Amino acid sequence: MTSQVSLQLKSPYLVFIAGVDSVHYAKTGLGLVQWCPELVAGQLRFAGNSLDLGVPDMTMQQAADAGVKSIVIGVAPTGGAIDDRWIASLEDAAKLGLDIVSGLHSRLEDFPGVVSAAQSTGVQLINVRTPPKGLPVGSGQKRSGKRVLMVGTDCAVGKKYTALALTKSLQKLGVKATFRATGQTGIMIAGSGIPIDAVVADFISGAAEVVSPANDPDHWDVIEGQGSLFNPSYAGVSLGLLHGSQPDALVICHDATRKVIDGRPHITLPTLPECIDLHLRCGQLTNADITCVGVSVNTSGLPDHQRNTYLQALSDEIGLICVDSVMDSCDAIADYLVSHFDTHSNKEEIGDHA
Amino acid sequence: MTSQVSLQLKSPYLVFIAGVDSVHYAKTGLGLVQWCPELVAGQLRFAGNSLDLGVPDMTMQQAADAGVKSIVIGVAPTGGAIDDRWIASLEDAAKLGLDIVSGLHSRLEDFPGVVSAAQSTGVQLINVRTPPKGLPVGSGQKRSGKRVLMVGTDCAVGKKYTALALTKSLQKLGVKATFRATGQTGIMIAGSGIPIDAVVADFISGAAEVVSPANDPDHWDVIEGQGSLFNPSYAGVSLGLLHGSQPDALVICHDATRKVIDGRPHITLPTLPECIDLHLRCGQLTNADITCVGVSVNTSGLPDHQRNTYLQALSDEIGLICVDSVMDSCDAIADYLVSHFDTHSNKEEIGDHA
Repeated sequence: MTSQVSLQLKSPYLVFIAGVDSVHYAKTGLGLVQWCPELVAGQLRFAGNSLDLGVPDMTMQQAADAGVKSIVIGVAPTGGAIDDRWIASLEDAAKLGLDIVSGLHSRLEDFPGVVSAAQSTGVQLINVRTPPKGLPVGSGQKRSGKRVLMVGTDCAVGKKYTALALTKSLQKLGVKATFRATGQTGIMIAGSGIPIDAVVADFISGAAEVVSPANDPDHWDVIEGQGSLFNPSYAGVSLGLLHGSQPDALVICHDATRKVIDGRPHITLPTLPECIDLHLRCGQLTNADITCVGVSVNTSGLPDHQRNTYLQALSDEIGLICVDSVMDSCDAIADYLVSHFDTHSNKEEIGDHA
Repeated sequence: MTSQVSLQLKSPYLVFIAGVDSVHYAKTGLGLVQWCPELVAGQLRFAGNSLDLGVPDMTMQQAADAGVKSIVIGVAPTGGAIDDRWIASLEDAAKLGLDIVSGLHSRLEDFPGVVSAAQSTGVQLINVRTPPKGLPVGSGQKRSGKRVLMVGTDCAVGKKYTALALTKSLQKLGVKATFRATGQTGIMIAGSGIPIDAVVADFISGAAEVVSPANDPDHWDVIEGQGSLFNPSYAGVSLGLLHGSQPDALVICHDATRKVIDGRPHITLPTLPECIDLHLRCGQLTNADITCVGVSVNTSGLPDHQRNTYLQALSDEIGLICVDSVMDSCDAIADYLVSHFDTHSNKEEIGDHA
């Protein structure tokens, strides 16, 4: 029942990059191609745009003919607004029966031509920043399935990347694992999820319960984290997500060179033991057996020759597996996870990710 | 600047109790008369209703003539809906230039006659469950003034009552103290505030910063708490409120007979030392000097002869002042607060509550 209130996107996608020719502004499109190539049928670029996501070029008609279900705006210009030059294309998409998916600040509903085109064919205009209606209050009631939540010493320390990498590592082992998205880019990649920081405060943990519903006892939900218990702007979001996820396992995400909270130079970053301890203590409210299984560190700010040494020293110090997810993958954490929880692969179920 | 986004109600009030004749459904009206009699000009009851708040009866015209600025719906029928039989009266109020203030679930904007009457005179329709627009993200930046926050071992343990009682106790000492409301009934009593559990999750701590803005160094904001760090449904709200309030002092509110979290029989209530410890630990993020100054216990569930014994034993055990705010007032906590923080009264400022 609860999964009905999660956002649901229809694939395959046509990634719309229009005239945007900078990689920097096409992170959403690049993320889709990197993490869910199986959902991406192609890209639509305006004539003369040399930016290439490495997937087939398609016209809107070709996409519709190929069975594409959604056009996903894969670019985010400065300001996060929908560009007037895109409107004709978006209207065409709607007329051809494609849902339009946007993660931008400006709303698709504010463009009358797009709205009337969508109404004429009954397609959906989906803004992944807008949470679904009808979210419940969190119950704290124990549910089946295994859950691992990414948490952080701060915001923007690689929680989404780590969750996606860990999901892939688990799936490589043949373990049933699903990435669960709580932010806009994650939702586009997963095709479903809830933008947890946009829900009304009373429903944070309830939304988290919806994002990772009850599942098979040997199935892992790998949940994208948000904010940090140590970031004074967003800690409420993080605590509600922790309680609602009732995780069996935590992966702590960290940036090796960060000393203070992002944008809050007066607040020192917690140490990893402090961070682990507070998360375990708070997490025990909804899962008495919660444990921390590893640390994912962004070491890109360190000199190359120090990166492995840093991770090894950290691992020795805190007694946990420490990896850089980009450099090392999350295979070591995945191995530990399935071994510790005895959720080994059933070889006949390889590929069952739902 | 920040205080502009807090809800602001105009007094004096006419309390509207209409045909509701049960004390149980008139808690808002009773709270207004108990806690801010100076704001209440009178009550409006329908003919034959014997429920009496103990303030003068007024017709709508008499209220307008007497300078009443707002009609406040002081009753909450089962279901929380606006009763069709009230509409003619509410229209009259708007036509006479009174703002209409409601804390009910149904919205004043859904009654076209009320809306057009309000438009004709330019009065406001204020739903105190709806947060103001334009809330900032919390900054965690230290601000001047003293703040004491009510927190709880659970929801519904007397946080609002304790905050109001402590404000009165401080004001009796001549200390500059302001009650800061974070819930709907509190907002009506205070005349301003933000319904903190109704804001978008990303803005919880920012809303809390707005609720208790910078003030004189010897001024106390007494902040109404919400939820509990130990309630899995609402802990995110509580943590954001704790961080945004950056309190110097905490008062822990507790119910002497409660054993499990309200509505969550599978979750044991924390002990008071556990509760104090987690609050201090989390609160140190935005105020390194946070301290707990007392405990306010609802002992009404105990046999009369055990109540004082219970409070004394608890005080001996945890080394803090323990009172029942209803039975004892909060005078002892107020005395300790001003003595510990050296914010004693300046006799020339008695009565300056802003």
